[in-house]
Amino acid sequence: MAFKRRKISVIGAGFTGATTALMLAQKELGDIVLVDIPKLEDPTKGKALDMLEASPVQGFDANIVGTSDYEETAHSDLVIMTAGIARKPGMSRDDLVNTNAGIMTSVTESVVKYSPETYILVLTNPVDAMTYAVYKASGFPKNRVFGQSGVLDTARFRTFVAQALNVSVEDVTGFVLGGHGDDMVPMLRYSYAGGIPLEKLLPKEQLEQIVERTRKGGGEIVNLLGNGSAYYAPAASLVQMAEAVLKDKKRILPAIAYLEGEYGYRDMYLGVPTIIGGNGLEKVIELDLTDEEKKLLDKSAESVKKVLALVK
Amino acid sequence: MAFKRRKISVIGAGFTGATTALMLAQKELGDIVLVDIPKLEDPTKGKALDMLEASPVQGFDANIVGTSDYEETAHSDLVIMTAGIARKPGMSRDDLVNTNAGIMTSVTESVVKYSPETYILVLTNPVDAMTYAVYKASGFPKNRVFGQSGVLDTARFRTFVAQALNVSVEDVTGFVLGGHGDDMVPMLRYSYAGGIPLEKLLPKEQLEQIVERTRKGGGEIVNLLGNGSAYYAPAASLVQMAEAVLKDKKRILPAIAYLEGEYGYRDMYLGVPTIIGGNGLEKVIELDLTDEEKKLLDKSAESVKKVLALVK
Amino acid sequence: MAFKRRKISVIGAGFTGATTALMLAQKELGDIVLVDIPKLEDPTKGKALDMLEASPVQGFDANIVGTSDYEETAHSDLVIMTAGIARKPGMSRDDLVNTNAGIMTSVTESVVKYSPETYILVLTNPVDAMTYAVYKASGFPKNRVFGQSGVLDTARFRTFVAQALNVSVEDVTGFVLGGHGDDMVPMLRYSYAGGIPLEKLLPKEQLEQIVERTRKGGGEIVNLLGNGSAYYAPAASLVQMAEAVLKDKKRILPAIAYLEGEYGYRDMYLGVPTIIGGNGLEKVIELDLTDEEKKLLDKSAESVKKVLALVK
Amino acid sequence: MAFKRRKISVIGAGFTGATTALMLAQKELGDIVLVDIPKLEDPTKGKALDMLEASPVQGFDANIVGTSDYEETAHSDLVIMTAGIARKPGMSRDDLVNTNAGIMTSVTESVVKYSPETYILVLTNPVDAMTYAVYKASGFPKNRVFGQSGVLDTARFRTFVAQALNVSVEDVTGFVLGGHGDDMVPMLRYSYAGGIPLEKLLPKEQLEQIVERTRKGGGEIVNLLGNGSAYYAPAASLVQMAEAVLKDKKRILPAIAYLEGEYGYRDMYLGVPTIIGGNGLEKVIELDLTDEEKKLLDKSAESVKKVLALVK
Repeated sequence: MAFKRRKISVIGAGFTGATTALMLAQKELGDIVLVDIPKLEDPTKGKALDMLEASPVQGFDANIVGTSDYEETAHSDLVIMTAGIARKPGMSRDDLVNTNAGIMTSVTESVVKYSPETYILVLTNPVDAMTYAVYKASGFPKNRVFGQSGVLDTARFRTFVAQALNVSVEDVTGFVLGGHGDDMVPMLRYSYAGGIPLEKLLPKEQLEQIVERTRKGGGEIVNLLGNGSAYYAPAASLVQMAEAVLKDKKRILPAIAYLEGEYGYRDMYLGVPTIIGGNGLEKVIELDLTDEEKKLLDKSAESVKKVLALVK
Repeated sequence: MAFKRRKISVIGAGFTGATTALMLAQKELGDIVLVDIPKLEDPTKGKALDMLEASPVQGFDANIVGTSDYEETAHSDLVIMTAGIARKPGMSRDDLVNTNAGIMTSVTESVVKYSPETYILVLTNPVDAMTYAVYKASGFPKNRVFGQSGVLDTARFRTFVAQALNVSVEDVTGFVLGGHGDDMVPMLRYSYAGGIPLEKLLPKEQLEQIVERTRKGGGEIVNLLGNGSAYYAPAASLVQMAEAVLKDKKRILPAIAYLEGEYGYRDMYLGVPTIIGGNGLEKVIELDLTDEEKKLLDKSAESVKKVLALVK
Repeated sequence: MAFKRRKISVIGAGFTGATTALMLAQKELGDIVLVDIPKLEDPTKGKALDMLEASPVQGFDANIVGTSDYEETAHSDLVIMTAGIARKPGMSRDDLVNTNAGIMTSVTESVVKYSPETYILVLTNPVDAMTYAVYKASGFPKNRVFGQSGVLDTARFRTFVAQALNVSVEDVTGFVLGGHGDDMVPMLRYSYAGGIPLEKLLPKEQLEQIVERTRKGGGEIVNLLGNGSAYYAPAASLVQMAEAVLKDKKRILPAIAYLEGEYGYRDMYLGVPTIIGGNGLEKVIELDLTDEEKKLLDKSAESVKKVLALVK
Repeated sequence: MAFKRRKISVIGAGFTGATTALMLAQKELGDIVLVDIPKLEDPTKGKALDMLEASPVQGFDANIVGTSDYEETAHSDLVIMTAGIARKPGMSRDDLVNTNAGIMTSVTESVVKYSPETYILVLTNPVDAMTYAVYKASGFPKNRVFGQSGVLDTARFRTFVAQALNVSVEDVTGFVLGGHGDDMVPMLRYSYAGGIPLEKLLPKEQLEQIVERTRKGGGEIVNLLGNGSAYYAPAASLVQMAEAVLKDKKRILPAIAYLEGEYGYRDMYLGVPTIIGGNGLEKVIELDLTDEEKKLLDKSAESVKKVLALVK
């Protein structure tokens, strides 16, 4: 019995994938394989090498390699999917679905061929549908395929609330259900600063503005950048979920989970509160919803289903 | 007396500047102002906001703003210069000098106007000459203006040695003098793994290959990326130097220092071993050099002087 | 303008004081002066030196010295009071009051003499009364004198809940008001796991057991140790508050605050939710209480007042 | 395949064992079982619980339990031996040998019974002999049993040098061979500040004083404490070695290694430079010694052999 570092493959070496690789390495969560298409193999290798050269200064030990060959991902413990085309200004998230579903299926087949026992964490948008595509293409049990959206949505929400209250981001929490971004269902009654419900701390109108800004949070960054979409906060969100798995932390985190009746939905992926640990997405937490919350969630689920129909 | 966070301005919001801002924030070294030209104000704001939205997840408290208005940098404790045009494939570092010297002078004037007491750390290439340009434009004492090159050069060297020996990067050290990259003077007799001189651990030929690869380390990344230059390791290097200043760590680090007779040179900036602490570049450490080392350093200094002549 | 490390003095070099010093140094929050009585000067120096010798291995830069001479604490940015006799098995917290109040007054005078601008954070029990004693002896404004109890109480509560639910401690929060330990007023409706009110996740009876165990949490450790009281969690709690001040984090934390009408009390210290930042205890957060909560808080306040009467 | 946390058992819940447990948990290296004799079971449980209660505040997820039952250590990945009686003022390290060898043998048998595949890291003094006793009692291959001494000795050396030069501890390295403490063979020519040999930076006399102080470093703390011996720096040293194993870091660290001809010694444990990684003590690094160094090492080895004779 010798101790080996975990192996984590990040598929897609764009800004999000590369930033994810960096943050995984900074936390010494394992060795990293950064993968992109053959045409981008050199830049992928360049980013990996540059990151590796930061390791003596940042003080982490992690091998980081760039490649376009899935054989190098063999025996990955965890695979993070960031591949896919990015949302461009004006493009709806739904427009991405056809292209990205094809990418998901093809990439998943390559991943599974070399790492049949791995866990897969999906970021690619529209994430509910893309996670479903990966699930189907992988043939994996549902605990080993899940997606990120709520960690990022709540991170944005927490940022805006912390600014509004002028308090530490560490003391603000948020809670969302449903699809990502525009479709998200905010649960304000489960959102706090220092444990105090936000509804007691901020005027209703200001809270609504913050919720609205959170919904459009991805678009806000897209519009500012002008070319490309957010990557720092998405990468951080992926890494938090990866850490929860690899360190068996049993974090309670919102995640895109496969539902088999929970919240009244079946055979679809949707954002719900979950427990993430050494078995991946270990559990979906079911909550009582108010009628209004349920209505919003239904609407969000409908929207997801429409996209899903394209995938199916 | 109330405690305030340090304020750090990063000039240039390209890959290096943005990555530097992220790494400064991750270490909670202070609040960050990321600055770029008016035309890029929106993307600069976008990057800053995206980073800020990572803070609840990564667990750091730091305000991060993007701007093109130097007034927002007022009362900075430290300013990091990454502005300037990047080296492109095939471009010699010297080709950059005219454009970047002009940028340095103009930016420095804006910086000094709002932060007359700040420290300035320069990365822009050719760094020896650019640091000189900043020094002259600022009118600051020499301890408050210095540049980065050796931390990055040794980081690359350490990475390659650690790979060759299959040991932790934490246990490999390197030592360079002189200009950045091609002009660097490696001091192999002061380079170790676990304290053991590398000359005892690796064949001479392999060490020479590693030195050569280190010299061309910037170019290796440029060629791989195809478009742009390294940013992860440069950013990490800047942050290590910034931390040494802001936490008064008295680190012994190679830095681009203003020389007034040390090593036989005057009125120029050159890479030498220094002590970096709360007073900035607190001290140049003078070493006895062998004849060969001195010859190489002279050659490196000559090369720097030629570039400097353009600036002066 | 040169950057200097913060200076933090820890009064009392027993287990709690020493552990606090270690944790402060690990976070590089500043240089540490560990102070105890002349009779214990040598052991105090021994602990400080031992800790300092851990710094190259743990990778922190912080000077740590042990002394019995308050002159060495001069110009402290923050002073942490852990001095006082410890609660022994069977001893009520109130029994400590006379001895410890005398210690507080004398120590505070020495502290203030050399650091008239400092902030003072008090742990010594009974902490509500002892913080009052320090406040009076210091003559400082109320934002610069405050005490720890709720961070520790909620840390224990969070630990027990995380165990009961088998989830990460990071996702459990707690909320208490009032005095420390036995007198604490738990606010279960403001206590969550992953944002979900605990009352929805655990049976009422189990929650009550956890509350009861939290109340007796100090005693549980005292009884197990047989000799001495808890120090790891208390030290961690102090360091979190110290970090909030020194990094101006604006944390929302329960603290022992001086009240001037808040919650209906005057001229006393009591545990309430606060904002801790660069101005020390910057704000008391007032909450609407249910009748039952108010009754419990009144009872807790009565208990504090009785002890306070001895001090006054 | 589910991810589980590593399991680390720390034998001996005195100051060193408890501090080791804390530092392991702070780095989230695994779940911790802290073990002591039945008579001390309650205090051991108390320390473990107190530490666990620090976890929500310090932000780590690690289960920590105290016990006197070795069954709870079953399937440990790593076992750290700190058990044994402590050196008291005036007591030579050799006086400890008889008592502690008996403890080692008995403890090792209990450990091996429940964790036949584990790695064992020994701190108990006299460490060279005690590691041998554990090796023999375990029947393990040599890579799975090794001891700590040089990390601590060099940590002290580095601390004293950093103070003398007023530089960061991070930039000072030291190198020792041979037995622990009094018997240590300092290799000054392999000791540096910022890569510069210390002999160029400090007068010979001052270096000799530092070496002498390092040799007596354990005694210095013992004398100051008056009651007990150092624990912060020893714990930090153990944790660095543990981390190197569990994260497969391939650190180059001095360690107490079983020798089979290296440096001319056989069938004994002695402090030598090694590579510590996922296979435990993976390699002994052999260096050319000067005649004087070899003579000193022989003397140190002789001293170790004498103690070893008692054990054998």
